[in-house]
Order: sequence, then C-alpha cells, then structure tokens
Amino acid sequence: MKLYTENYPAPNPRKVHIYLAEKGLSVDRVHTRMAERQHKAPDFMQKNSLGQVPVLETDDGKFISESIAICRYFEALHPAPPMFGRDPFDAAMVEMWIRRAEFRLWNPMGQVWINADPRTAVVNPNQFKDYGEHSKKILAGAMKWIDRELGDGREFLAGKQFTMADIVLLCGLDFAKFIHQDIPEEAQNLRAWHARVSARPSARAT
Amino acid sequence: MKLYTENYPAPNPRKVHIYLAEKGLSVDRVHTRMAERQHKAPDFMQKNSLGQVPVLETDDGKFISESIAICRYFEALHPAPPMFGRDPFDAAMVEMWIRRAEFRLWNPMGQVWINADPRTAVVNPNQFKDYGEHSKKILAGAMKWIDRELGDGREFLAGKQFTMADIVLLCGLDFAKFIHQDIPEEAQNLRAWHARVSARPSARAT
Repeated sequence: MKLYTENYPAPNPRKVHIYLAEKGLSVDRVHTRMAERQHKAPDFMQKNSLGQVPVLETDDGKFISESIAICRYFEALHPAPPMFGRDPFDAAMVEMWIRRAEFRLWNPMGQVWINADPRTAVVNPNQFKDYGEHSKKILAGAMKWIDRELGDGREFLAGKQFTMADIVLLCGLDFAKFIHQDIPEEAQNLRAWHARVSARPSARAT
Repeated sequence: MKLYTENYPAPNPRKVHIYLAEKGLSVDRVHTRMAERQHKAPDFMQKNSLGQVPVLETDDGKFISESIAICRYFEALHPAPPMFGRDPFDAAMVEMWIRRAEFRLWNPMGQVWINADPRTAVVNPNQFKDYGEHSKKILAGAMKWIDRELGDGREFLAGKQFTMADIVLLCGLDFAKFIHQDIPEEAQNLRAWHARVSARPSARAT
C-alpha cells in the first residue's frame, strides 16, 4: 500500500497520520507537495479527480480518497484497538461526533480559510471576505458549544475512549489555530481536552 | 426505540426513512414539527443540543443525533442487507462517496438554502446573498463532477450495489430541486442515476 500525503499543517492528511500512529501501523508514504501543486497534476487527478490528499493506493492498485474512508479501510483490516467504537451505541457516538466536528467546526473553519485568509487569495482571488469574517464567529461559537458538551467531565469527545472523533476535532482545532482562530480563553473544558489529547505520542509526532 | 423526525422535504430525516425502508425496519416515529419550532424547544434540545432532527432514542433512553450515525447504529444491529459496504474496500467506497456527496454537494446546497433562499430569510435575516448566489455555481459544478464520475457506467454511486451513499446523494439532489437547483440538463449520467434510484419503493414512499 502507498499513502499519497502531505505534511503538517495539512489537516486531512494529519488525521490519517495520527490514526496510523495510534494503531501502530506504518504505510509507505509518497510526499505530495501541495505548494508545488502536485495534487493537481494530471497523474494525481487520475487517483482522485478532486485533486486532494490524502489518497491511499491499495495493494491491488485501487484508490481510496477521503481521510475517514482511508481510516475505516485500515480499521476493517486491523480492528484492534478500536478507533470507531466498541459496540453499536459507542460506534454511533463516534460517528455522531466525527460529523459534529466536521459540520460544526471544520465547515466554518474552511470558510475562514477560503474566504478570509490572505494565504488562499492567490489561488482563490474571488474571496467573499464578509462571509469569511462572519465564519470566524460561527467557528468560535462551535468551539464554545463543544466546550459546553465536554462539561459533563468525560475524558474524550465520544466517551471514555480516545477515538477517531478526537482525531478529527484535534486536527480541526490545530488548523484553526494555524489560521489564527484559537480556542476561546473561556472554553476551559475544550482547552483541557486539547492539552490532554495533544500530549499523546500520536499527536506530538504529527 | 423512537425516532424524532420530520416529513419531506426535510432532507436529513428522509435519509433515515429511506434507509429503514430499504432494510425493512420500522421504528416508532415522533413527528417533530419544524414549522412549529418543536426542534428548538427546551425538551428537544435536551435530546440534541443542536436542535436538529432526526434524533433516535434507544430502548435504554439514550439519544443519537446525525442521520448517518443513526443509520450506522441500525446497521450494527441489523447487518443484512448491507448498506455500508460488503467488504473493506467496498465499505471504504461507500464512506468515500457519502463524504463526497456531503462535502461537495450538500455543503454548497446548504449555503444556497441559508444565504440565498427567501424562505430562510425569516430565521436568518443576516443572509450573505452574494455567497449564496456563488454557491449555486459550486452546487451545479458538483453535479457535473458527479455526472462525469458516473460516466464509467456503474449502476450505483459507490459501485454495483445500492448503498447509503446513494441515499445521501438522492436526498441531496431532491432537496436541491426543492430550492430550485435542478440537475443540469447535460448531466445525463446523473439524471439516469436519479431516475433509477427514484424508482425504488423506498424513495417513492418517502
């Protein structure tokens, strides 16, 4: 297998890297340099017509895009330790929190990045700056909402175990910080969670 | 179990309804009337602090939000017929296409609905109309991209079987039509897929 991927701060590749570290798996990596637009090159677009990393090439030469799809593929091949839940309800909580992290936090974060960050203005000259600025408020609101949800004292996002949902939220928050949208000072539950999760070897190595 | 849900055209509840019909499962339903803001009532917010339907109440009184998380819960309890893939690679394709349908099509569709549709201006007076209009183009581009992807002649979105990915795309496209963003005329593969999938009893009943 081969993983076409990019380094930090690219948030989607990082999800897969943390997942693999947590599972103790290693996969050959092909560094796909986004700054050189290698993810938009014709031969790469054959692998993923969206021109995005990461992409996994399987042993029989098939391609899987989307970080969570790649992780679920590894999970099916290597179920232990479980990163997508330990029973039907637990698995539902992991899926629910992956999606909440994506739709509530990653989506407005993407809007800030695309529409309000000067670093993307080069490839996206048609920025909607008003909407990008507005999205900063939505993003901060999402962080405060997750902070309240964590107020019940649970250790990890989807319950007692570290799961894929924590990885999604962590990579989102760290990318948000990269675009200058840090966790609000008052969101103490979320800050404590972030410190706890960031201390894991898998997060520190990626 | 109890499913707190809403009728057509609410697209997220409909995903669960089609899924249940395909599986031959029935669940008690509590009609949560969005027009009466029942999904924002304090007792409902206890079930899902985001104030969204659908929500599943399990037999032991726990709550699951997010349509795909609800469907994955049913899938773990009732694996046949499989709606999330038949082997690791197939499951990865289903997950990949669920996410592509959501991030590429549902996301800009949501922006059109929130920012450019007069029917949401009542609850969202701060519409970003320019961005809503721009999102119509992104949405049409997504439909054309999926149309090209279907050009290899496969019957369903993630391969040879009807899966959850088809349900996500169908509910997206039908809601897009509800907000006057129909499939482009030239997207013949996507139109043929839509006709094929819409003819299924599960789709016609919801």
